[in-house]
Amino acid sequence: MATDNKPKARLPRGLADRGGAELVATRAMLEKIRSVYELYGFEGLETPAIEYTDALGKFLPDQDRPNEGVFSFQDDDEQWLSLRYDLTAPLARHVAEHFDKLPKPYRSYRAGYVFRNEKPGPGRFRQFMQFDADTVGAPTVAADAEICMMAADTLEAVGIARGDYVIKVNNRKVLDGVLEAIGLGGDANASRRLTVLRAIDKLDKIGVDGVRDLLGAGRWENPEAKSGDFTKGAGLEAEAVDKVLAFVSAGTGMAGLSNLAGVVGSSETGMAGLDELHQIAALVAAGGYDDGRIVIDPSVVRGLEYYTGPVYEAELTFEVKDEKGRPVRFGSVAGGGRYDGLVARFRGEPVPATGFSIGVSRLQAALGHLGKGDKEANTLPLVVVLVMDKDRIADYMALTKRLRDAGRDSETGNLLFRAEMYLGGAGMKAQMKYADRRGAAAVVIQGSNEKEAGEVQIKDLVEGAKIAAGISDHAEYRAARPAQFSVKEADLLDAIRGVLERRAEPTLGLDD
Amino acid sequence: MATDNKPKARLPRGLADRGGAELVATRAMLEKIRSVYELYGFEGLETPAIEYTDALGKFLPDQDRPNEGVFSFQDDDEQWLSLRYDLTAPLARHVAEHFDKLPKPYRSYRAGYVFRNEKPGPGRFRQFMQFDADTVGAPTVAADAEICMMAADTLEAVGIARGDYVIKVNNRKVLDGVLEAIGLGGDANASRRLTVLRAIDKLDKIGVDGVRDLLGAGRWENPEAKSGDFTKGAGLEAEAVDKVLAFVSAGTGMAGLSNLAGVVGSSETGMAGLDELHQIAALVAAGGYDDGRIVIDPSVVRGLEYYTGPVYEAELTFEVKDEKGRPVRFGSVAGGGRYDGLVARFRGEPVPATGFSIGVSRLQAALGHLGKGDKEANTLPLVVVLVMDKDRIADYMALTKRLRDAGRDSETGNLLFRAEMYLGGAGMKAQMKYADRRGAAAVVIQGSNEKEAGEVQIKDLVEGAKIAAGISDHAEYRAARPAQFSVKEADLLDAIRGVLERRAEPTLGLDD
Repeated sequence: MATDNKPKARLPRGLADRGGAELVATRAMLEKIRSVYELYGFEGLETPAIEYTDALGKFLPDQDRPNEGVFSFQDDDEQWLSLRYDLTAPLARHVAEHFDKLPKPYRSYRAGYVFRNEKPGPGRFRQFMQFDADTVGAPTVAADAEICMMAADTLEAVGIARGDYVIKVNNRKVLDGVLEAIGLGGDANASRRLTVLRAIDKLDKIGVDGVRDLLGAGRWENPEAKSGDFTKGAGLEAEAVDKVLAFVSAGTGMAGLSNLAGVVGSSETGMAGLDELHQIAALVAAGGYDDGRIVIDPSVVRGLEYYTGPVYEAELTFEVKDEKGRPVRFGSVAGGGRYDGLVARFRGEPVPATGFSIGVSRLQAALGHLGKGDKEANTLPLVVVLVMDKDRIADYMALTKRLRDAGRDSETGNLLFRAEMYLGGAGMKAQMKYADRRGAAAVVIQGSNEKEAGEVQIKDLVEGAKIAAGISDHAEYRAARPAQFSVKEADLLDAIRGVLERRAEPTLGLDD
Repeated sequence: MATDNKPKARLPRGLADRGGAELVATRAMLEKIRSVYELYGFEGLETPAIEYTDALGKFLPDQDRPNEGVFSFQDDDEQWLSLRYDLTAPLARHVAEHFDKLPKPYRSYRAGYVFRNEKPGPGRFRQFMQFDADTVGAPTVAADAEICMMAADTLEAVGIARGDYVIKVNNRKVLDGVLEAIGLGGDANASRRLTVLRAIDKLDKIGVDGVRDLLGAGRWENPEAKSGDFTKGAGLEAEAVDKVLAFVSAGTGMAGLSNLAGVVGSSETGMAGLDELHQIAALVAAGGYDDGRIVIDPSVVRGLEYYTGPVYEAELTFEVKDEKGRPVRFGSVAGGGRYDGLVARFRGEPVPATGFSIGVSRLQAALGHLGKGDKEANTLPLVVVLVMDKDRIADYMALTKRLRDAGRDSETGNLLFRAEMYLGGAGMKAQMKYADRRGAAAVVIQGSNEKEAGEVQIKDLVEGAKIAAGISDHAEYRAARPAQFSVKEADLLDAIRGVLERRAEPTLGLDD
């Protein structure tokens, strides 16, 4: 707070405002995702941002404040509430609450903000949007295969080209089989299993040697200098480490599946997982998605505890520069898997479920890298009516209304352009600056001279900018497309339409 | 929590899940509102749900917990955060934070959830959606007049007929003038002025006599029996009460404006307010909105402290039944006004601003009362492919994919219908029940006999339901439109299109 007791206008870390073009692009992307989910027969569901903390699976034993990671507060009856940190836990609560009323399987999609009370960083926010689809009550892996295919269709629908992404599929049961085989089965080893899981999940970032360290004694932030932070490892024996690494490095596709058979050995869980992966591979092939769009890949494990079967991750394979300017794969934009235990938490009986979640902001950033964000973000052209004479505001409003009436296609209801009257208190120069700042396509000017002559002046700001930038020295061209001209009031709409059509045309002969 | 330590699946009071049809209707309504705001030249802005408590204008003097009414919690640096309770305070913060970068006037619209930590009740939620539009940096009342006209256009765009609504306009300065005249001017009387304001704001609910009580000594919940809760009044003298009531009862339109002149007397503030109302009335008339769409009405004051000039309220005038079954006007669905002080809180210099806010859920409820909610909520027809033989899931998936490929118009990209394969583990009967519950238009069945014959069976559920309900006893009609029939696999898409076209047709000859 400033010393003069004025509050400071600022946002808490990890939170951001988002403006016009970004919102237009997000909305366009959300509609495309929604349209694929709808086509597949999923139905919309929306849950509130606030839930009971225990219903989200966060428990508060003896603590004053709930678990880290979530924003929590007490209701006036002292019960703990939290902001949702994903869209899966609220779905599990919804299904358990309305179980008898829902069709089974229950197929829903949900888009909304989630909140993480974590340390923010570049591209890491404390509020961000997810777009999930889940099938609850589907025991067969056909549901998992379907979601993987839908993930592929969705990425293509938003503009990621085939070849620029891959949906990687694995199965937790296979990993569980490996962990059983090395003596990490049972409830007592749950936390060590999680450490193994998280180590494997870092494969992309730290490579096989890094994962080896984390499976063993631990890993230095700078392994060569043995300096920086030290992360304690899972403490596995060398032989066990090799088994896990053999799993991770089994390789992709059908060859990978054969290799896994050797790693899994006689573990029943592992064999069941392998069988599920074979079934998924067969369905994926039958659907024609085995052309590189969907690939079995044992290196994908997902960092969350609650998965119980197939897990999948959508990875973008094109390269971008990292913070240090090195080329890296763009990486994961969506992921999910089977979580047969989440609804069971409430109901006491297992309810099979599988689903996936798109990181909306991250996918939008990816489209930006591909140069596809901007195209979507094209906002409608804007026409600004200037106020030359403050006593004639009603006249300028009437001009604006004529423009607005023409700004909507009377048949489709779609907008063609937008119009507004300048509403500030400033003079002509500031008004022109305002129109520029708004990115207006044209301004309409009617001073007293024009009014007497029954005319309006139209200034074509796009043409004007070209001339100002000197990119056109074709005198003839300039004469044919003047940046400012007068027309009869009755011809206002035709003249504006002309300016807007020009704007949409390619600029002929200006490149040479 | 249940005794067996299973968490109970439930939502905190005043929060709700929303399902398919309601979401479709909301989305359609939001798009219509957005389209009007865009046409008027407003641009989208989105702010996060979490803000610094002090930036929202809530202060925490010596209390452990912030003011009531907002959900608040401490960040890890001990600073207080709150969930936004409206979309105006965050806009003021945004404008103050980015003042130099923004075009002035800055015209934005914002849609989003707001949170109130208040006692919920029927139709009163602790999370609900608002859709606001604001012009910041516009000193003239032309900006207020424009927003009133836009409010009228918006209500008509979402489906409220002209005549079913009125935008009422008043000016706080006029009321301030009256209050000055009765000795309630100055900072020292701020809280008494607020009491007067809130009393007037209840006019609709408690009538003139009720307001009279609240302006004087106070009011019993049951005035005749003098029983129930007692609300302390503003404690005005009888003469002062009469002046305030004369203001409230001045009447609408130009006649009301003349009457107000007498009430305001020589107060400069009051006269300035009156002048602004005249200007607004003139602009409204010039725009043709003086046909009952926009009306000057001194009984509208709005219950919030921060308004500094024109205030306006959109009221739906058709009648609905209240909790006790009595006919009442539907009432307010949107409102707003001028708040020249909100950005000034941060900047120390006044920044003129005006805006209004639509209560999205309330407006949607209104459309429901008018029978317009359902029409919008029409979801796309759904086709369900049944699983007759678990070994042939890949075949059923392929059938589903063929349907999906036809489900999207290849030219426009719009969806025509949706398709899905049954993904549960149950038998034929449960699968048919599932299709019914989903409201499917048709199911596709292929058992081993049909497979051998290269055929599929199609069951038309809409026709089937009609026959089951016995509403058709025209034997001929039934023969022509069978509820279940076989076609060659190659003819699947044509047959499904036929079923869906029938569904859209009016049912001929069934009413007599």
